[in-house]
Amino acid sequence: MSDLAMGILNGERRALARAITLVESTRPDHREAARALLRALPARATPALRIGLSGTPGVGKSTFIESFGLMLVGAGLKVAVLAVDPSSARTGGSILGDKTRMEELSRHPSAFIRPSPSRSSLGGVARRTREAIALCEAAASDVILVETVGVGQSETMVAQMTDIFLLLLAPAGGDELQGVKRGIMEIADMILVNKADGDLKPAALRTTADYSGALHLLRKRPQDPPGFPKAVPVSALEEQGLKGAWEDIQSLTTWRQTEGIFARTREAQALQALTYEIEEGLKARFGATDGVAEHLAALRASVASGEITPDDAADQALARFLAPHAPNPA
Amino acid sequence: MSDLAMGILNGERRALARAITLVESTRPDHREAARALLRALPARATPALRIGLSGTPGVGKSTFIESFGLMLVGAGLKVAVLAVDPSSARTGGSILGDKTRMEELSRHPSAFIRPSPSRSSLGGVARRTREAIALCEAAASDVILVETVGVGQSETMVAQMTDIFLLLLAPAGGDELQGVKRGIMEIADMILVNKADGDLKPAALRTTADYSGALHLLRKRPQDPPGFPKAVPVSALEEQGLKGAWEDIQSLTTWRQTEGIFARTREAQALQALTYEIEEGLKARFGATDGVAEHLAALRASVASGEITPDDAADQALARFLAPHAPNPA
Repeated sequence: MSDLAMGILNGERRALARAITLVESTRPDHREAARALLRALPARATPALRIGLSGTPGVGKSTFIESFGLMLVGAGLKVAVLAVDPSSARTGGSILGDKTRMEELSRHPSAFIRPSPSRSSLGGVARRTREAIALCEAAASDVILVETVGVGQSETMVAQMTDIFLLLLAPAGGDELQGVKRGIMEIADMILVNKADGDLKPAALRTTADYSGALHLLRKRPQDPPGFPKAVPVSALEEQGLKGAWEDIQSLTTWRQTEGIFARTREAQALQALTYEIEEGLKARFGATDGVAEHLAALRASVASGEITPDDAADQALARFLAPHAPNPA
Repeated sequence: MSDLAMGILNGERRALARAITLVESTRPDHREAARALLRALPARATPALRIGLSGTPGVGKSTFIESFGLMLVGAGLKVAVLAVDPSSARTGGSILGDKTRMEELSRHPSAFIRPSPSRSSLGGVARRTREAIALCEAAASDVILVETVGVGQSETMVAQMTDIFLLLLAPAGGDELQGVKRGIMEIADMILVNKADGDLKPAALRTTADYSGALHLLRKRPQDPPGFPKAVPVSALEEQGLKGAWEDIQSLTTWRQTEGIFARTREAQALQALTYEIEEGLKARFGATDGVAEHLAALRASVASGEITPDDAADQALARFLAPHAPNPA
């Protein structure tokens, strides 16, 4: 086994950071090394708990992670925080994952915080995050927090690679209930209404009640024990409600483990990832096949001018891809 | 040229309906016939105006299409209405496209209304709708209205195959502004606030003002002349504001045509469709390749049990697909 693999298994933060850099690289030799590393790492007997956390800017996500993370490391647990920010692909800079946001947690020896890499596609983010989670798990993390900002499909993506999905909200007027996308209500295991402190406390309690009501209206999911999904008020600033939320997360996890749902969900997630990788791989191999790019360029011109339908052009391009040594039909 | 193609070019509604049934079929021989038909139909010198229309249930979409469509046919135009409802794939029945919703319009000789087929995936819906639009265009429609309910990705899909995209809303309290997905605000060329009549008129005017304000906050798009995108109040019930909306649509269209944006957008849409068809085709051919299904089943078992990573399994499945005559590595 390589030094890097040994370092990860020994829980060395620097080795973990280097390994994540490796899975983030697009260089073919790095990719090969990353795969070999992932193959070499043995599966954990007791899996880490993977928690997805979503919240739009302003809800106090960093403060929550800082307080929640410190509570967990204080209880003797090893915590890893990964940030997923597909939006940085467009803006060119990561808006998440800044370690200065979680100053005390980032200095704690039992915590590992990894910012989101900038300039990446959602496709790349998915595989990289999945592999970073596997690395953190191999490094004996007890809890892996995967945070994402509510942009596009990133929440669904994170939910598809975590065991528990938390939605962090800020207090709001009752009418703003509409503002939360229906889709995210349906994937949330718990809604935490943050800022239940000071002047905002009454609004936070009201918002919690509103979301509790809304959650009751949703169809019952097979992965939920009685009482879940639930909405609870928390204050990351005053460290209120965090212990209760953690107890809820643990009881939900235990129930799902007992019912076999925990393991079945991970299996289903791995199979989803396989389908995803096959689709991404098909596109990548298509694009990289000799002659396909030139043929496609010619077809694109014909499609743009209306000479040929997209459907017919796709057929020709696919025929060329699947018979790479035949002469171009054009 | 076939009788069917001739019928379409002669503007026979029955021929158009039969042709759309043909492009909706998944039978391979029907598919071949549909492609041949599409190839045979000549391009129009003057393109039809393709208008996408989105609105959640309850905003008065049917009444709007009835009133708006009758105004257009009254002005001597030929109108086609296509419904896109990917949600019917799950619910098993179409909630859209019921002709009884547009009783007078559906009886008008210059109107053609086509309900959404039930039981279909978003992937299938995209190609079928694109081809149905092409058929309506060949049948000398002047305006093709493509309506969709605001479910998942259907709005983006419809926006990618139309020239103008309208969002129909109902009057609401100012706080509900949040309820409209940001994504749809960004693709809308015009927001029509319906039900600006009777008791709801003040609320409709206020909602219009709210959305006008919100549209101003969005980044300027290159495809918009001064004053667009805009929000206007309409009453489908009392037929108020429809003429003004149509004039806005026409002036926007003329501006985009003059600037070359209209043609460039159609080109870009055709190229997008090509990319989409290639991706769908890759998946379909992968799934249909001899031996791939069996190999994949074995790989899925290994992924589910954690013996192999999704990434490695995908690599093996793709290798098998691209070298179909090699023995299975398993």
